[in-house]
Amino acid sequence: MAKSYAIIGVGGVGGYFGGRLAKAGYDVRFLFRSDYDYVRSHGLTVKSHAGDFYLPSVQAFNSAESIGPVDVVVVCLKTTGEGVLASLLPPLLKPSSLVILIQNGIGVEAEVSRLVPGAMLVAGLAFICSAKAGPGLIDHQFYGNVNLAPFNLTSAGLELLSEVAEEFSQAGIPNKIMDYAIARWKKAVWNMPFNGLSVVLRCQTDVLVSEPAVSLVRSLMGEVVAAAQACGAPGLRHEFIDTMVESTRQMPPYSPSMRLDYDFHRPMEIEFLYRRPIAMAQAAGVDMPMMRMLERQLTAIEEAKL
Amino acid sequence: MAKSYAIIGVGGVGGYFGGRLAKAGYDVRFLFRSDYDYVRSHGLTVKSHAGDFYLPSVQAFNSAESIGPVDVVVVCLKTTGEGVLASLLPPLLKPSSLVILIQNGIGVEAEVSRLVPGAMLVAGLAFICSAKAGPGLIDHQFYGNVNLAPFNLTSAGLELLSEVAEEFSQAGIPNKIMDYAIARWKKAVWNMPFNGLSVVLRCQTDVLVSEPAVSLVRSLMGEVVAAAQACGAPGLRHEFIDTMVESTRQMPPYSPSMRLDYDFHRPMEIEFLYRRPIAMAQAAGVDMPMMRMLERQLTAIEEAKL
Repeated sequence: MAKSYAIIGVGGVGGYFGGRLAKAGYDVRFLFRSDYDYVRSHGLTVKSHAGDFYLPSVQAFNSAESIGPVDVVVVCLKTTGEGVLASLLPPLLKPSSLVILIQNGIGVEAEVSRLVPGAMLVAGLAFICSAKAGPGLIDHQFYGNVNLAPFNLTSAGLELLSEVAEEFSQAGIPNKIMDYAIARWKKAVWNMPFNGLSVVLRCQTDVLVSEPAVSLVRSLMGEVVAAAQACGAPGLRHEFIDTMVESTRQMPPYSPSMRLDYDFHRPMEIEFLYRRPIAMAQAAGVDMPMMRMLERQLTAIEEAKL
Repeated sequence: MAKSYAIIGVGGVGGYFGGRLAKAGYDVRFLFRSDYDYVRSHGLTVKSHAGDFYLPSVQAFNSAESIGPVDVVVVCLKTTGEGVLASLLPPLLKPSSLVILIQNGIGVEAEVSRLVPGAMLVAGLAFICSAKAGPGLIDHQFYGNVNLAPFNLTSAGLELLSEVAEEFSQAGIPNKIMDYAIARWKKAVWNMPFNGLSVVLRCQTDVLVSEPAVSLVRSLMGEVVAAAQACGAPGLRHEFIDTMVESTRQMPPYSPSMRLDYDFHRPMEIEFLYRRPIAMAQAAGVDMPMMRMLERQLTAIEEAKL
């Protein structure tokens, strides 16, 4: 039976994935903030390198209460306001619901477990370049797949997840179900160097994968791999560093999300991208001195508005 | 008997110290580059918080050969062109001459020893805020003392140094003769965090001694103290960190020299301020991971023109 979905956070990522699911005919309920009135009148437009599409009428809501319980909640909010999930999620959940957290960082699921005890959580690792370009307008540039990694699912939850994965595929969202720790830490190998350095050095990925910055990127990745191995992902190997550097070299010059947050004067996701993984590694006996330095630099940039 | 002096590098520091010595009546010969004609016609003006003065006629030269051998060579060049000393110094030296290197960094004397074997070298650690404000115009803002630290002096050299120190004092340049390793590394405790971070974070000292950046500054200073203790300055204590932070808090917001070099698109002194001390510490078994990161960031900024 087809699932009901709630999309929480309708930016570049939520708008694209939610739009794909709605286009495929699934029951998708969007929670809007400022765009609520606009989308009710004008619908949702997705410009996509995989083909543009327009949804003249989407199920638009302006409160979690009015959406009500669904089978799957897809959270695409920035982690900078993670606390709001304590009030946003409960009205959306049945005991059998899955919450897919398509969010950056390490420790996200632990935090949401604390905020909403008992919720069944799935990490969503999106590989996508997509941005909100205006009210009800999504600009999807490239990639568009997602890894799904169960955090605390019952066997019924795991079954539901595999059906959801199938619906994602049907809707044109390539995906893979993966081990939780591996999935989160693999993404951190890319996220931690590129996000922070693009802000501190005011550059894009192309500079960071060129000499001399790439040696710094590799050292930082090395710290993440060591942390990952101590934190439940012993299978993550140092060779993965080469893969990440090489695949970033294939990309056009790119501004990671934290750099966009910095450029647009939005809060940066320092907590879950840096402080939590550094603390988790520390607790597992692994020091990340370069990452500690990057965290301090980012905090200084944010607090002193540099 | 009064000494003869050559001032090599007549910027804010060389212009001020040389100007003081000339004003006191000593035989001071200045080596000019672009300002040679201007100073021959118009003399040297020093605006100083300790009282302005004007020297209508100074001994201006445009080559080391025309200056000839002197008792004391005072080098106030940036270390970014250290190689020129191989040709600049020999014409200025007698076997008994002292070379005072008022330059930033660690490993400067080792390098000059290599370039000019046999020269008697003294490290000069200037505590001064002074800049060249125009042709023949020095703007001295505050402080103005120098620590003198013998590197490889014979006993005759040491005797000469104490006479030079006395002449400096007579000329209004407060000074102290200090242990070599202590002197260089003490200055590095200040130089290494503040120079690099002011460039990477695009800020001045006031931001760096405020929360949250000050915790990063203290960590970086900690690496320098550990390196110093392993590199011949076991007497340098961690308490010195508090002294440096406190005294920087007393200063008005200040742009360290590397920040000025960056702002004015001049090469930065990364080699002697970072690479040499990091390598020296490494050789003594002390890793400086945060400094390695800062060095990589600065190198990226310089090479990619960020």
